[in-house]
Amino acid sequence: MKQSKLFIKTRKEAPADEVSKNAELLIRGGFINKEMAGVYSYLPLGLRVMNKISNIVREEMDAVGGQEIKMTVLQDSDVWQKSGRWSDDVVDNWFKTKLKNETELGLGFTHEEPITEMLKNHINSYRDLPVCVYQIQAKFRNEARAKSGVMRGREFLMKDMYSFSKNEEEHNSFYEKVQKAYKKVYERLGIGHLTYMTFASGGTFSKYSHEFQTITSAGEDTIYVDEDKGIAINQEVLNEEVLSDLGVSRENLVEQKAVEVGNIFTLGTKFSDPINLVYKDEEGKEQKVFMGSYGIGPSRLMGTIVEVLSDEKGIIWPKEVSPFHVHLISLGENEKAEEIYNELNSSGVEVLLDDREAPAGEKFADSDLFGIPLRVVVSKRSLEEGGYEIKYRKDEKGRIVSKEELISELKDYVFKTL
Amino acid sequence: MKQSKLFIKTRKEAPADEVSKNAELLIRGGFINKEMAGVYSYLPLGLRVMNKISNIVREEMDAVGGQEIKMTVLQDSDVWQKSGRWSDDVVDNWFKTKLKNETELGLGFTHEEPITEMLKNHINSYRDLPVCVYQIQAKFRNEARAKSGVMRGREFLMKDMYSFSKNEEEHNSFYEKVQKAYKKVYERLGIGHLTYMTFASGGTFSKYSHEFQTITSAGEDTIYVDEDKGIAINQEVLNEEVLSDLGVSRENLVEQKAVEVGNIFTLGTKFSDPINLVYKDEEGKEQKVFMGSYGIGPSRLMGTIVEVLSDEKGIIWPKEVSPFHVHLISLGENEKAEEIYNELNSSGVEVLLDDREAPAGEKFADSDLFGIPLRVVVSKRSLEEGGYEIKYRKDEKGRIVSKEELISELKDYVFKTL
Repeated sequence: MKQSKLFIKTRKEAPADEVSKNAELLIRGGFINKEMAGVYSYLPLGLRVMNKISNIVREEMDAVGGQEIKMTVLQDSDVWQKSGRWSDDVVDNWFKTKLKNETELGLGFTHEEPITEMLKNHINSYRDLPVCVYQIQAKFRNEARAKSGVMRGREFLMKDMYSFSKNEEEHNSFYEKVQKAYKKVYERLGIGHLTYMTFASGGTFSKYSHEFQTITSAGEDTIYVDEDKGIAINQEVLNEEVLSDLGVSRENLVEQKAVEVGNIFTLGTKFSDPINLVYKDEEGKEQKVFMGSYGIGPSRLMGTIVEVLSDEKGIIWPKEVSPFHVHLISLGENEKAEEIYNELNSSGVEVLLDDREAPAGEKFADSDLFGIPLRVVVSKRSLEEGGYEIKYRKDEKGRIVSKEELISELKDYVFKTL
Repeated sequence: MKQSKLFIKTRKEAPADEVSKNAELLIRGGFINKEMAGVYSYLPLGLRVMNKISNIVREEMDAVGGQEIKMTVLQDSDVWQKSGRWSDDVVDNWFKTKLKNETELGLGFTHEEPITEMLKNHINSYRDLPVCVYQIQAKFRNEARAKSGVMRGREFLMKDMYSFSKNEEEHNSFYEKVQKAYKKVYERLGIGHLTYMTFASGGTFSKYSHEFQTITSAGEDTIYVDEDKGIAINQEVLNEEVLSDLGVSRENLVEQKAVEVGNIFTLGTKFSDPINLVYKDEEGKEQKVFMGSYGIGPSRLMGTIVEVLSDEKGIIWPKEVSPFHVHLISLGENEKAEEIYNELNSSGVEVLLDDREAPAGEKFADSDLFGIPLRVVVSKRSLEEGGYEIKYRKDEKGRIVSKEELISELKDYVFKTL
């Protein structure tokens, strides 16, 4: 992509009403546009990052046997009345609307109910289990407060996955596979070293569930971490009984602010019971299906990566989610830059080429803001010194390399596994 | 993908309340699930088709210079009040909802207003134009009637594109490029031979617009076609003046039922005026931006393809949108089938392998219903006769080929351009 054609403009300052760092940097960088509190549009660079995050999640869910579908935003009240979650007294963050005939509809804040109802058409016997389905789709939650940029959306992207097993044992085996899959996701997103699986409230589903929490001062949650044992507990469930169960003591716990980047639940028959999702076992006897649900928020993850990895100059994307592999900056050498640009593109290297007429200082400031972690500069000076200046974001200084060395190093960088 | 793992079950009959052929076949085939009238979930095979249709649209929009973004469903009323389209008296198919503080929000039925508002941050001068942005995103329309399967959704997928030009001349040049791009889309989707660009009402935007209409008895629109001249006119604008303008006479027009699969509009300053999207021209004088908007419905296209191309046995997908390239059916020869399956997969050929324990008749019936246009059968008989039976949907009978011939023919089929 050539920046001279990219329609977005960067900003030196964020809108006055933006208090969160992630929204400030993402708006200034032209990644997102604020429509209203908690509701953001994705501009070209932001959409590229979102798609890369989503694809990493998708790959890891496919790897545990998840089958991708797409459900709907609009929700009929019937099945939610069966489960007891239609009422605004039970669920306080529904957005609701109406058909022309006055029938009330809801906007999906989660999808346990419709997926349970849907699977009744596709599960008959023990031979049809286990099954696991997931979607990556917009969710709507009528939050009272939305001041955390893309980390607390009223409209946001979620991967929600649902498992259907014959019994608790089959469920537990899958649940463990998902815990490992989630850890892989956070590693690939560059935040694995800051992310803990925590012992959390089960809400209305079960006694406990598990969350994944990334340490950041911008987080709305408080967790307690025993580093040595690698055990973390959410504030909401911290008590003597839990400490005893888990074998940790208070003096070894460090309190941290964190953001919840994943949540997995054992649902049991909580939904299969009222909605009547059943199967015939080997003896021909009818049994309730045993369920689990597994959520992860790609849009929240985008904000989290910005909160925890950016520096004073701007965003720093991990390589796997960077909008482009390389930021190629031309300082008055567009012809030479385009040669490299075309050659890299045909090798499958994604390049953002800054071919604009703008001062060098502005180009470097924009580049730091964009956060593509590998920069190449072609200028009169670099050509005189032998070719192209290559600089990784984490390095203090760049190096001059020849064209051949550049192409070779970039291909290694992009295609050799981390 | 192995069918023994695919969770969906096909049905011999559609739900009693489904009156449209496209919904009947897509539900029976396990492609979609009906949540309520006009609101459908996409199951794995259906999602694969939708993604392929969307990617074809995406490629053709990228080719004319479109930059992909993703806007939001939730709409603040402010900008819609500026344009006059907030009121339910003006727009009769809004879905509306509320924040907790009682502020009314709408669910986007189209996105001219928010995109015009957004571009104010990114367009300053003539140097920033022309620009073209698009999105592929869920739209919501509170239709009074929704009885046409996925061809008339209350929640549906749309590609909407918006162009921003300096003046009418620059706009017209782009508008013509889009007309050609749309024709390419329909060709690639296998319905080009049935799809006409028609002369249509401009609604509240301009005197006229253009639509793309595919001939089908399931269509809700009526168009008049002069085959020789290749000119088509929507019923709503057919009158003596229009006939005279276009140089056609009534006796050469054939009346047809059709479904609108695309609509492109010249907006002029209809939105840039009240929302104040301006640019400085070469003389430094402020001008209003000249806009166009271009819609195409991927979910409606999926239904249209089913309406116009299916036969009495089931769906027939054009190769470019088929959920898989090949349907490989094993009749008791899973080991041999898996060899082919693995080899094809590693060559980039997408294979659906029917490795289930089911009677041959049921496997063939499901295969006809699924509509993958190329089938390969491996059975005791085919192996005795030399290998594998290959049959294209359009052919009466299959042929036996060796394993090497099979792999070679399939690779040609998938990778050689039509």
